[in-house]
Amino acid sequence: MPSPKSTVAFAELRERLGELDDLTQAASLAGWDEQTMMPAGGAAARGEVLATLGRLAHARLTDPALGALLEQLGAVGDLDETDSRLVAAVARDADRARRVPDRLVADIARHTAAAQVAWHAARAADDFAPFRPALERHLELRHELAACFPEASHPYDALLHAFEPDLTTAHVRTVFAQLRDGLVPLIREIAAADAAAPVPELPGPFPLDAQRVLAREVALAQGFDDEHWRLDVAVHPFAQSLGSTDVRVTSRYDEGSLTSLFGVMHEVGHGLYERQADPALARTTVGTGVSLGIHESQSRLWENLVGRSEPFWAHWHPRALELFGEDALGGRDLAAFLRAVNVVRPSLVRVEADEATYSLHVILRFELEVALMEGTLAVADLPAAWDAKTKELLGLDVPSPSLGVLQDIHWAYGELGYFPTYAIGNIVAAQLWQVIRRDLPDLNADLARGDTAALREWLREHVHRHGRLYTPAELLQRITGGPLDAQPFLDQLRAKYSALYGLR
Amino acid sequence: MPSPKSTVAFAELRERLGELDDLTQAASLAGWDEQTMMPAGGAAARGEVLATLGRLAHARLTDPALGALLEQLGAVGDLDETDSRLVAAVARDADRARRVPDRLVADIARHTAAAQVAWHAARAADDFAPFRPALERHLELRHELAACFPEASHPYDALLHAFEPDLTTAHVRTVFAQLRDGLVPLIREIAAADAAAPVPELPGPFPLDAQRVLAREVALAQGFDDEHWRLDVAVHPFAQSLGSTDVRVTSRYDEGSLTSLFGVMHEVGHGLYERQADPALARTTVGTGVSLGIHESQSRLWENLVGRSEPFWAHWHPRALELFGEDALGGRDLAAFLRAVNVVRPSLVRVEADEATYSLHVILRFELEVALMEGTLAVADLPAAWDAKTKELLGLDVPSPSLGVLQDIHWAYGELGYFPTYAIGNIVAAQLWQVIRRDLPDLNADLARGDTAALREWLREHVHRHGRLYTPAELLQRITGGPLDAQPFLDQLRAKYSALYGLR
Repeated sequence: MPSPKSTVAFAELRERLGELDDLTQAASLAGWDEQTMMPAGGAAARGEVLATLGRLAHARLTDPALGALLEQLGAVGDLDETDSRLVAAVARDADRARRVPDRLVADIARHTAAAQVAWHAARAADDFAPFRPALERHLELRHELAACFPEASHPYDALLHAFEPDLTTAHVRTVFAQLRDGLVPLIREIAAADAAAPVPELPGPFPLDAQRVLAREVALAQGFDDEHWRLDVAVHPFAQSLGSTDVRVTSRYDEGSLTSLFGVMHEVGHGLYERQADPALARTTVGTGVSLGIHESQSRLWENLVGRSEPFWAHWHPRALELFGEDALGGRDLAAFLRAVNVVRPSLVRVEADEATYSLHVILRFELEVALMEGTLAVADLPAAWDAKTKELLGLDVPSPSLGVLQDIHWAYGELGYFPTYAIGNIVAAQLWQVIRRDLPDLNADLARGDTAALREWLREHVHRHGRLYTPAELLQRITGGPLDAQPFLDQLRAKYSALYGLR
Repeated sequence: MPSPKSTVAFAELRERLGELDDLTQAASLAGWDEQTMMPAGGAAARGEVLATLGRLAHARLTDPALGALLEQLGAVGDLDETDSRLVAAVARDADRARRVPDRLVADIARHTAAAQVAWHAARAADDFAPFRPALERHLELRHELAACFPEASHPYDALLHAFEPDLTTAHVRTVFAQLRDGLVPLIREIAAADAAAPVPELPGPFPLDAQRVLAREVALAQGFDDEHWRLDVAVHPFAQSLGSTDVRVTSRYDEGSLTSLFGVMHEVGHGLYERQADPALARTTVGTGVSLGIHESQSRLWENLVGRSEPFWAHWHPRALELFGEDALGGRDLAAFLRAVNVVRPSLVRVEADEATYSLHVILRFELEVALMEGTLAVADLPAAWDAKTKELLGLDVPSPSLGVLQDIHWAYGELGYFPTYAIGNIVAAQLWQVIRRDLPDLNADLARGDTAALREWLREHVHRHGRLYTPAELLQRITGGPLDAQPFLDQLRAKYSALYGLR
């Protein structure tokens, strides 16, 4: 039983967190609206609103009164486990926020706006040069940011922690080395098999209305409902929750491919993480996904481990045939269809990459980012380094910067440390999948009936409901009994492609 | 030239107002989204977000530091006219906000939520009784609110001022008496003419897609553009600006009538007021419509004075014929079409009322609200008083509360003092129109070509650009040389209906 003093202090904490969470939600809504609804002319005013909401939220998180409250609650130690985990999670946020001076936050915000303009100009000219000074300045600012966390053993750690708390550069290096050593030969074997007998692509076309119908039906089967979700169109698809009761996903549709379907499954996977957070964590700032990597594991699990699997399509392939016709799907054969949606072919652009080569795109960016932060790579030499690594990892020549070093907007935002979370998502999804397959022996039969309820419930129980109460490492340890490990991902890929491509 | 001290203080004021305006915009977006986009399940969380944003904005407006700044800037008196008007407008807001204790604001907010539940229950049961205690409590709270402004000569003044600054109950009484004395006989004459030879209604149907096409084309002709506006669907149509660069209007569509077209013109009229505010007033809280009455004058002007006029339809009637066919429009005759869209027939429901009888619905509510506040009418007797007044003013029997005293949600919000602004909008629109017709001799020819540019520019120059720099009375005085006056409205109605109905 907490003391009366702790009870009062915890109630005050909840009130402060409620206000902070409301401000964050208002900002999330403004961000969602900016990308889906806002007329273009509203951009400047929206920028001001977002800056103000961000500043007010930051002030609340760094408020010394909040700090004192957290310290008091942490020191007494008489809260129950959930409440003390909540206090610890918020204390970590507050510590991180307090360590970064307002001046630096403002400098970064200001430069980020300018850097985006430079990046767009560079993209338009298909020339890295206009972006170079902007990225150099970003790098300076990231060094300043890293200096706020002198206890880190590597300056890149501080950047990583913004997206993936507690993961170290050294650990990522180890895991990515394991990943790379497994992926490169696997992809080489697949490429040889594909060269000998190329997998035919789905002929299409896939009329947009039929795609919307299928995407919505699949989303409903995943757990989407009109009471708590929206599905809209966005140029760069994303998911955004406004608390667990209002979850918004977006997609884009292209007549030439079925990408939208996998994209919607991906975003609904993100959305379920938010939707299934424990309602008791509402308005605490803790009832949300714990890190980008764990979040990405949820989207990848649905997109790839469910959405590209045979049991899933055993149920949905007949419906796809109804909606698109057998010509568009290249015949009525499920096995051929599965080969087509699982094709592996190295390509230049990350967002178009397949399940196997995707992580190589991430490793490429991680290695370049670390080299930039370590000073062993100068920004001026980045385009050449990019092209060399693309050749090394993917075996491809980069014809121009817009298909290479300028393809992603992340660096325009200064977001070094973000890319690794994409590959961590793949890795964690596979680690979870291993446990799920053991815990849910009927999963394949369920999926073949279009039933995802048991899977969704497993995810709720083991991952979603906890929000940010456990760190990513703690969560992974609880579920898998171990740390981040690329082996299950590599094993699953090899098993799948051995069957599909007939590898030895 | 302002002193350096005033320059510094004014810059600080602008910074504070920028933050306040941003918070208000975030709340406006959250409100717009709630009515157009939000999944129903998000309602509770949205209520928290809106409450927090409202509380933070209120705290900023009542901040003693803001008060000191306003006092300093007002006392020195060395600002230019625009800046000192801005200071005066914000000082009025701050004074009003400071006069109402936080406790009362919270009580009102809490009771408003409960009263809405009661009102919906009463509506569902078609019985006033479940709503009665909620309205009684609202009335108590409004008396408490009125008591915060002891200098007012009538307790209803304080309620009125929330929507229509500086207008007194006595003044509204005088103007509404003038309005009533002119409207009642006019409507009686029209009813006699209509009984002798009923005006045929438009047969319809009006397919929704064609309505959307026409509504959009008309909106574009009014000044709507996709860079700065949105047009969406809402159950209760409204306009909402997020600064002057992002203006959002809504409509609803019903196959049986052309109401949506006039509704869109109405909302775009509101929107233009916001869109054409001086960009220099952005993020000052002053770059927005000055009062609900003046705002309503802008919507009514477009809906009725433009949208139901012969020159307007001289241009648009051929397009309507193209889109709906002559059967739906009851033939190809423009004169018959104009009679149909200008039909005057007393009816029970305010939101379905025509241009002439509409104001009687408002007078009815105003008289009842004043009697409630004066204590000469008890809430228990309100339904009977409503029915009696409906008989007296509109000559109609009320069959049930949902078509009578329970038809509007405003009282569930406790919004006494709001209704008068609807009739003030009609009156002001007519006063402005008198000046516009003098200033723009070619207006009819313009409208007959579908050209509204000169009208839009007139409104920008004389009304819109000023935002809240002038009080409503000052604005009206500048433009018309006099105060609020119902005579132009009555004269215009009589002239129009004399022609349409062949009155003597």
